[in-house]
Amino acid sequence: MPTMRAVQVPRAGGDFELVDRDLPTPGRGEVRVRVQACGVCHSDMFAKEGVMPATPFPIVPGHEIVGLVDEVGPDVLGGWDTGDRVGVGWFGGACHHCGPCRRGDFITCENGRIPGVTFDGGYADAVVVPADALAHVPDELSAEEAAPLMCAGVTTYHALRSSPARPGDRVAVQGVGGLGHLGIQFAARMGFEVVAVSRGREKEDLARELGAHAYIDSEAGDPGQALAEMGGAAVVLATATRGEAISGLLPGLDRRGQLLVVGAAETPLQVDAMSLIGPVASIAGHASGTSTDSEDTLRFARLTDVRPMIETMPLERAGEAYDRMMANDARFRMVLTTGQ
Amino acid sequence: MPTMRAVQVPRAGGDFELVDRDLPTPGRGEVRVRVQACGVCHSDMFAKEGVMPATPFPIVPGHEIVGLVDEVGPDVLGGWDTGDRVGVGWFGGACHHCGPCRRGDFITCENGRIPGVTFDGGYADAVVVPADALAHVPDELSAEEAAPLMCAGVTTYHALRSSPARPGDRVAVQGVGGLGHLGIQFAARMGFEVVAVSRGREKEDLARELGAHAYIDSEAGDPGQALAEMGGAAVVLATATRGEAISGLLPGLDRRGQLLVVGAAETPLQVDAMSLIGPVASIAGHASGTSTDSEDTLRFARLTDVRPMIETMPLERAGEAYDRMMANDARFRMVLTTGQ
Amino acid sequence: MPTMRAVQVPRAGGDFELVDRDLPTPGRGEVRVRVQACGVCHSDMFAKEGVMPATPFPIVPGHEIVGLVDEVGPDVLGGWDTGDRVGVGWFGGACHHCGPCRRGDFITCENGRIPGVTFDGGYADAVVVPADALAHVPDELSAEEAAPLMCAGVTTYHALRSSPARPGDRVAVQGVGGLGHLGIQFAARMGFEVVAVSRGREKEDLARELGAHAYIDSEAGDPGQALAEMGGAAVVLATATRGEAISGLLPGLDRRGQLLVVGAAETPLQVDAMSLIGPVASIAGHASGTSTDSEDTLRFARLTDVRPMIETMPLERAGEAYDRMMANDARFRMVLTTGQ
Amino acid sequence: MPTMRAVQVPRAGGDFELVDRDLPTPGRGEVRVRVQACGVCHSDMFAKEGVMPATPFPIVPGHEIVGLVDEVGPDVLGGWDTGDRVGVGWFGGACHHCGPCRRGDFITCENGRIPGVTFDGGYADAVVVPADALAHVPDELSAEEAAPLMCAGVTTYHALRSSPARPGDRVAVQGVGGLGHLGIQFAARMGFEVVAVSRGREKEDLARELGAHAYIDSEAGDPGQALAEMGGAAVVLATATRGEAISGLLPGLDRRGQLLVVGAAETPLQVDAMSLIGPVASIAGHASGTSTDSEDTLRFARLTDVRPMIETMPLERAGEAYDRMMANDARFRMVLTTGQ
Ligand SMILES: [Zn+2]
Ligand SMILES: [Zn+2]
Ligand SMILES: [Zn+2]
Ligand SMILES: [Zn+2]
Ligand SMILES: [Zn+2]
Ligand SMILES: [Zn+2]
Ligand SMILES: [Zn+2]
Ligand SMILES: [Zn+2]
Repeated sequence: MPTMRAVQVPRAGGDFELVDRDLPTPGRGEVRVRVQACGVCHSDMFAKEGVMPATPFPIVPGHEIVGLVDEVGPDVLGGWDTGDRVGVGWFGGACHHCGPCRRGDFITCENGRIPGVTFDGGYADAVVVPADALAHVPDELSAEEAAPLMCAGVTTYHALRSSPARPGDRVAVQGVGGLGHLGIQFAARMGFEVVAVSRGREKEDLARELGAHAYIDSEAGDPGQALAEMGGAAVVLATATRGEAISGLLPGLDRRGQLLVVGAAETPLQVDAMSLIGPVASIAGHASGTSTDSEDTLRFARLTDVRPMIETMPLERAGEAYDRMMANDARFRMVLTTGQ
Repeated sequence: MPTMRAVQVPRAGGDFELVDRDLPTPGRGEVRVRVQACGVCHSDMFAKEGVMPATPFPIVPGHEIVGLVDEVGPDVLGGWDTGDRVGVGWFGGACHHCGPCRRGDFITCENGRIPGVTFDGGYADAVVVPADALAHVPDELSAEEAAPLMCAGVTTYHALRSSPARPGDRVAVQGVGGLGHLGIQFAARMGFEVVAVSRGREKEDLARELGAHAYIDSEAGDPGQALAEMGGAAVVLATATRGEAISGLLPGLDRRGQLLVVGAAETPLQVDAMSLIGPVASIAGHASGTSTDSEDTLRFARLTDVRPMIETMPLERAGEAYDRMMANDARFRMVLTTGQ
Repeated sequence: MPTMRAVQVPRAGGDFELVDRDLPTPGRGEVRVRVQACGVCHSDMFAKEGVMPATPFPIVPGHEIVGLVDEVGPDVLGGWDTGDRVGVGWFGGACHHCGPCRRGDFITCENGRIPGVTFDGGYADAVVVPADALAHVPDELSAEEAAPLMCAGVTTYHALRSSPARPGDRVAVQGVGGLGHLGIQFAARMGFEVVAVSRGREKEDLARELGAHAYIDSEAGDPGQALAEMGGAAVVLATATRGEAISGLLPGLDRRGQLLVVGAAETPLQVDAMSLIGPVASIAGHASGTSTDSEDTLRFARLTDVRPMIETMPLERAGEAYDRMMANDARFRMVLTTGQ
Repeated sequence: MPTMRAVQVPRAGGDFELVDRDLPTPGRGEVRVRVQACGVCHSDMFAKEGVMPATPFPIVPGHEIVGLVDEVGPDVLGGWDTGDRVGVGWFGGACHHCGPCRRGDFITCENGRIPGVTFDGGYADAVVVPADALAHVPDELSAEEAAPLMCAGVTTYHALRSSPARPGDRVAVQGVGGLGHLGIQFAARMGFEVVAVSRGREKEDLARELGAHAYIDSEAGDPGQALAEMGGAAVVLATATRGEAISGLLPGLDRRGQLLVVGAAETPLQVDAMSLIGPVASIAGHASGTSTDSEDTLRFARLTDVRPMIETMPLERAGEAYDRMMANDARFRMVLTTGQ
């Protein structure tokens, strides 16, 4: 029986270990993808630490997967074929029969699956996924570049395009990191006036190179106030990890503005009702996106030359890549490569 | 010089006092309204306690005003004429030249005026207001009934009609009080499935008479959980005064649901980012409404037979009415009458 | 082998004939429904006359089906079970792999199926349909009443709830027939000010009983002009069969109003660009709705007491029912019953 | 008394004539603008030919005006001051008391004024306009470049940003002329995939330079079909002058797409109801924009380097410029300069 390399977490909180596993076989409606690159995402922590009860151990993490269709299981519709370049992100397939699915709202599926969290993911030479989790990957994007777009990319692109901001509006991106460095690029290519908000002045030049028209050093004063003085933002894309930092930007919203929350914060947002009522403002959550949202992301990245900044490591150094990401040292996304 | 009765607050925190004042003369773009009825609103507290620096003392409170146009000042456009039945609410006129005004968003005017808060209001025989603060009042509504619709009414009606909820959707109204007893009626007439949420079972019968299809006793368990078990709400209209009570209903939102905040809460909402991201939910503030929003409210109330439940008192008992309102004893809105 | 009665059309343009057929067996993902009632719709003409190349002859018409699940085929998800009360409408299942389906927009599926048009429908004792075409039917609705809601009902309800009209807005319903008599009821229950537009005065009383607040006799003058004089409509729900009659209502739109087209018209609409530009108005097409839209329709009908006006005939008189419908004599929907 | 040069049309259909006029004095709420540049627009034909009864003759045409505030009349609010760089477009001020104005929808004002059509416009050394018609002009834009943005620019920019298209969507621009060459630039800067549609292949290179990603020669086949084969457009911005050419692009809409009509067509659109119902598509009219929409246009042009292609002529050659424009010879907007 053919085998493959995989990096697995043996138990909640356990260390990564490189193992040989049987090459998995796609079941009904599934395909096997030969992994070329897999991004390392902060949410891999859900698997590593066993945060969600649904995670089966040992688990192979990884939900920013790009590779080639290797084998197509029975009853797969949609024309997927061996050799197709595909990507898989946080969205690992919907059930197609729950309430949200019957209404076509797959991202809120009550039985939604997540690669690398509820089933084995992309820290491996191959992965088996439901066909509805597949996104086509354009030839113009390398596997390494496309991988982070499957999660960090689709999250920021899809959040921004679905937001109330219209071209020419001011949009603030909080944080110049894994999410933010993509959010700035996407926002600029969408015709927004982009304000980057980050700690210190160190990332200002980079933010401007990525497309930001203005920069706010959140340590130099009250960033919400600074944003308000610029005229306020139609949308603030918040990527901070502390709730207070996120809600602290509420005063920076223009009337009818929206604070867009895309990442799990460690502490709750503190929201004064009047900060929403007076300016008729809102706070909205945004979940990553389905496989077609990912396709749109890749298509937009190709069309407008958006690319993630990445550091690559071979699969067997997954633990090192993960540590670097968790330490916030990555500039800005770690990507594992298999050499395939 | 003709005089009129007025109930004024002499200084921040001072007691109400009935005084005689010169009958005010409308300036350019203004009209004088002979007051027939004026509702007593919890926000009169802003004037009474001098919460806002913009309040000039002595101040005559009152921003739920219904009466007859008595005199039309110079340069008033729009065809307003002596004898017209009119109402005035929280919206006391816009500046028409600030940024929001130039875009037609009068409710967020940077120089907006508020009757009874930034200038003398309706606890009097007459009031002078800018013509753009006037709403036409249909003949079918009595002055007493129309008055609370100018603030509590327009706030709930306009919030609901502007919300993402669509006819047939489940809408929860938190609180069966001054705002809530109107919110339930409006929601039911808009074709929503209405869930009333209140403390105890005392108000259940009334809520159902007003149009609620279901009732949740928020003391009998976790009301957010109870709402979720019904299938979740597309919109929760929150009228609670404590932030925790409001954010406590977030788990009761259906996917893509919205928590709609219409009143100043005494404490901040506590919002876990994941409670918004997973269901792609949002929290939105809503400001009362302009004079045309009030006209729409009155028109809808006439069309669908929505009426506030009121207790009336003559103008000179304003202090008593205010105390009753603040003690939460009113069922459900206090209205002062002048006998005119 | 068990058999059943069916009324089929042997060839394009042929006459209806009552035949015995083998009871069909549900395949994978399908269920068999024991038909209790099936509405007769003007679109049955597509089958009868063989308008669409996709229609296989002989064909059993009928796409307003209500009955009981009789047998559940293999691999049916979603918990459907024998004895469930279900309805099936124009939406006969989506392919779940085409572009629109991958985005959850099932009603625009490129491979969508239609009962009674692309496969055998409800003019029979039983019908086999894909499980995703099934809507739950509430107990409070009889099979005869629920049947027309599966097509005429969902079309008008879903069009109105998806329209830009907000509660309190003026909505005109053109035509008081199979679609219009439901449109008027739905619009009134949604809190709209409803204007019925029809030829002559004969249907005025009925229109008002159904909920219309005003009536325009389209033969007594220019109906678009008459509607404009009322203040214009936020939405016109057009059900006329001649394009000129539909576009003739464009002048009756309020600024930013929408003409909503829900039925195939025999002749094209004539649209002067300026009639759209000046008032910033629009014309929008609306397709019936999916099975969950139908569920929402039934739920709303139950909640607000909307019922179709029907005439019933036993299955074997299908031809007579069809002729009566085509002659525009039905008041307002014909429904076939099987006695099951 | 000081005088100025003006080019006027003496009577409906009359020839342009260069005259000396008294320098006009701004009345209440008005300002005088010293004209630097004024674009020549196809809609100047309304004045030239006396199409609208509201045009007073003799009339000075011109509604694409850029210059400097020269004198501020009494009661002008908003901080306008002598020397301010300003622009004035088709929107020549609203009445602020009609129904739409009270709702803040100034562009649909029932008493709206139009420079060069209902009062004297910009074919002159100076023009007097209501202050609410003024847009701030950024320093980075020359007067000649800014002028056409006041009408052709705001029309296309505001139409596109208000459309249902989202970044990454395919947007077709019909026509590569005065409107279209701006529409293509705006669409590309908004992150759309832009398809230019024009007659012949002559303009293809230019269209691509302006930002188009694809080109359809409407004479080489059915352009609606060609667009459909590319996958269909979320929005078609139609600038053709014949209705049939506009409605001919309906088949090129993607599901839920919108045909956006921004210019008066000489003949009506022919719309088959099914072409809207099947794909759930729509046709929407779009009116130019108010002074703040113009400000947004200028701001966006500055932000993203959008510029009109212009040919300039001195004021006294207005007739020649007009003829060149009407003959469709301009590449692409004619602009008159005063030398001030
Ligand atoms: Zn599901
Ligand atoms: Zn991720
Ligand atoms: Zn109030
Ligand atoms: Zn203002
Ligand atoms: Zn499909
Ligand atoms: Zn039908
Ligand atoms: Zn106006
Ligand atoms: Zn123009």
